[in-house]
Amino acid sequence: MSNLRLLHVGLGPLGLRIQQDLLDKGTGSTVAAVDLDPQLAGRSLASLVPGAPDVRIAPSLAALTNWEEIDAAIVTTSSDLARCGETFEQILARGVAVVSSCEELVWPWLRHAQLAERLDQTAKRSGAQLLGTGVNPGYLMDALAVFATGVCKSVRSVSIARIQDATPRRVPFQKKIGAGLSPTQFQAAIGEGWLRHVGLGESLHFVAHSLGWPVERWSESIEPVLATRELECALGRIPVGHAAGVRQVAEGWSGGKRKLLFEFQAAIAQSEPHDRVKLESEPPIDLVLRGGVHGDVATSAIVLNCIAPLLSARAGLHTMATIPMAACFDPRAAGR
Amino acid sequence: MSNLRLLHVGLGPLGLRIQQDLLDKGTGSTVAAVDLDPQLAGRSLASLVPGAPDVRIAPSLAALTNWEEIDAAIVTTSSDLARCGETFEQILARGVAVVSSCEELVWPWLRHAQLAERLDQTAKRSGAQLLGTGVNPGYLMDALAVFATGVCKSVRSVSIARIQDATPRRVPFQKKIGAGLSPTQFQAAIGEGWLRHVGLGESLHFVAHSLGWPVERWSESIEPVLATRELECALGRIPVGHAAGVRQVAEGWSGGKRKLLFEFQAAIAQSEPHDRVKLESEPPIDLVLRGGVHGDVATSAIVLNCIAPLLSARAGLHTMATIPMAACFDPRAAGR
Repeated sequence: MSNLRLLHVGLGPLGLRIQQDLLDKGTGSTVAAVDLDPQLAGRSLASLVPGAPDVRIAPSLAALTNWEEIDAAIVTTSSDLARCGETFEQILARGVAVVSSCEELVWPWLRHAQLAERLDQTAKRSGAQLLGTGVNPGYLMDALAVFATGVCKSVRSVSIARIQDATPRRVPFQKKIGAGLSPTQFQAAIGEGWLRHVGLGESLHFVAHSLGWPVERWSESIEPVLATRELECALGRIPVGHAAGVRQVAEGWSGGKRKLLFEFQAAIAQSEPHDRVKLESEPPIDLVLRGGVHGDVATSAIVLNCIAPLLSARAGLHTMATIPMAACFDPRAAGR
Repeated sequence: MSNLRLLHVGLGPLGLRIQQDLLDKGTGSTVAAVDLDPQLAGRSLASLVPGAPDVRIAPSLAALTNWEEIDAAIVTTSSDLARCGETFEQILARGVAVVSSCEELVWPWLRHAQLAERLDQTAKRSGAQLLGTGVNPGYLMDALAVFATGVCKSVRSVSIARIQDATPRRVPFQKKIGAGLSPTQFQAAIGEGWLRHVGLGESLHFVAHSLGWPVERWSESIEPVLATRELECALGRIPVGHAAGVRQVAEGWSGGKRKLLFEFQAAIAQSEPHDRVKLESEPPIDLVLRGGVHGDVATSAIVLNCIAPLLSARAGLHTMATIPMAACFDPRAAGR
């Protein structure tokens, strides 16, 4: 497993973190890298991540010359599946499996059913596998909840909450949740489309489908979490009445009842951060991850941990519920 | 999925509960049943579980005449893999997949490596799958912990606790944990081999293997939880100083360090029952199932929920970490 030879497409902040973690974990080595950024093309991966292999970053997949060396690909380019579709197609057509952090790929049938069908066909024809994953969507608000139902005889409703304290997070994350914006600025940012967690609808449909629940209706709301006292964060001072962060709620109806409730909240100075899956079920399940799960570390980890189980699965488009579970395998301890 | 036609071997208390739950869930129907008990042979399954199909209970697998109708088998006969081996062999040889509650089958390589190898070969040759599962071992103290590591970059240690209040449980369970026994009786019962939770060692090796940790040394202890005040339970009065239940602890060493700690405790009047997986890891994980998970309901549920994912997996001997996740799928809501 430690001999996996990887192609990596997309060397932004998440991509570089994954490269660093791959070095630290030793679960594979990068033999090809692609990024569209002209500033990166031609540079060595080792110049971005000290200790990484001396692999020249190609400007496009078409420029790669060593496809026969590649066992699997990591794609960390965009949340928008439509923008990743061509990249996935090209890699899959070479018979190479793809794990991607593309949020919409976690449940691609919600917004891109036709593209999902095409990717599935390409993957099956080429004998390759495709998976979208991440800490959320991909794990905390979907796969973990489905996994929790495994010990249930019946489930009547699913409530999932991810409540995060953004204080210790990176500045880009604090910006993305609207920290510091006035209510007017907050609304404008929503309109511009950059202020929101992508994937709540995907998570909701992932869970509903896994339980056999047709979704008759669903909704998603977004609003600021307003500072009730003056706050400080890496972005600066947040006055009372300005946004400390964002709160998004998705609800889903099946069989005429509201059976799905998903709450995502991330704010500066958020008290009692946690992740929770609560099932009205037989037996009842109340699963809590105390303190929550740090998103940046976890998304990189789960992308890497999913490669081996994905490669063991049948060819085609997968979800976290159709491959064997990802585990934090240590090849060095195992002597591999 | 709801049309699955099942063979059920072993109609003891767990087997009958599974039959009842299968009726309630509608995820399949029983077309063949076997039990060695001469009291049961020839009787209709419907006489044991009202509403169940009118299937005559056969005294042995050899007496079955409708193998071609069977999609999968449930085996609920014994915790001891050596005693189940022949049953598994015969069913697998017919090309029929098997899900069993046999505790030792959850990680069969610990105590029955040769038999495990033989079963794997038979399964592969016949194109069938074999899985041992249950709430514990099979889920709470092994699969759930491995699943939790999926979002980790690295794991340094794993601590798992299952702390149960036995007060509301069935009398056979209260007996099995030694409730009411004097310390002398308790020790004698351990010697007789019937007083213990089976599977702690299996769970420990399951987790270690999944993380790539060679187990250099491991140990398991068992002791009574002594009543510190007079207690009442379905078995009667428990005097101070007698056993209220059992406590078992398994520890495992890898890389020269104690990296695995498994605590199982079940006692009358146990306060704060819960299940917990605590990882020293990056990011840190502290997963708690508040109130715990009711074992009787959950074991039946997970056996049934594993049939579909097992059938989707490759032929061979599986574990909970090598098949896609089990979910509580509702075929009636899905219109199947």
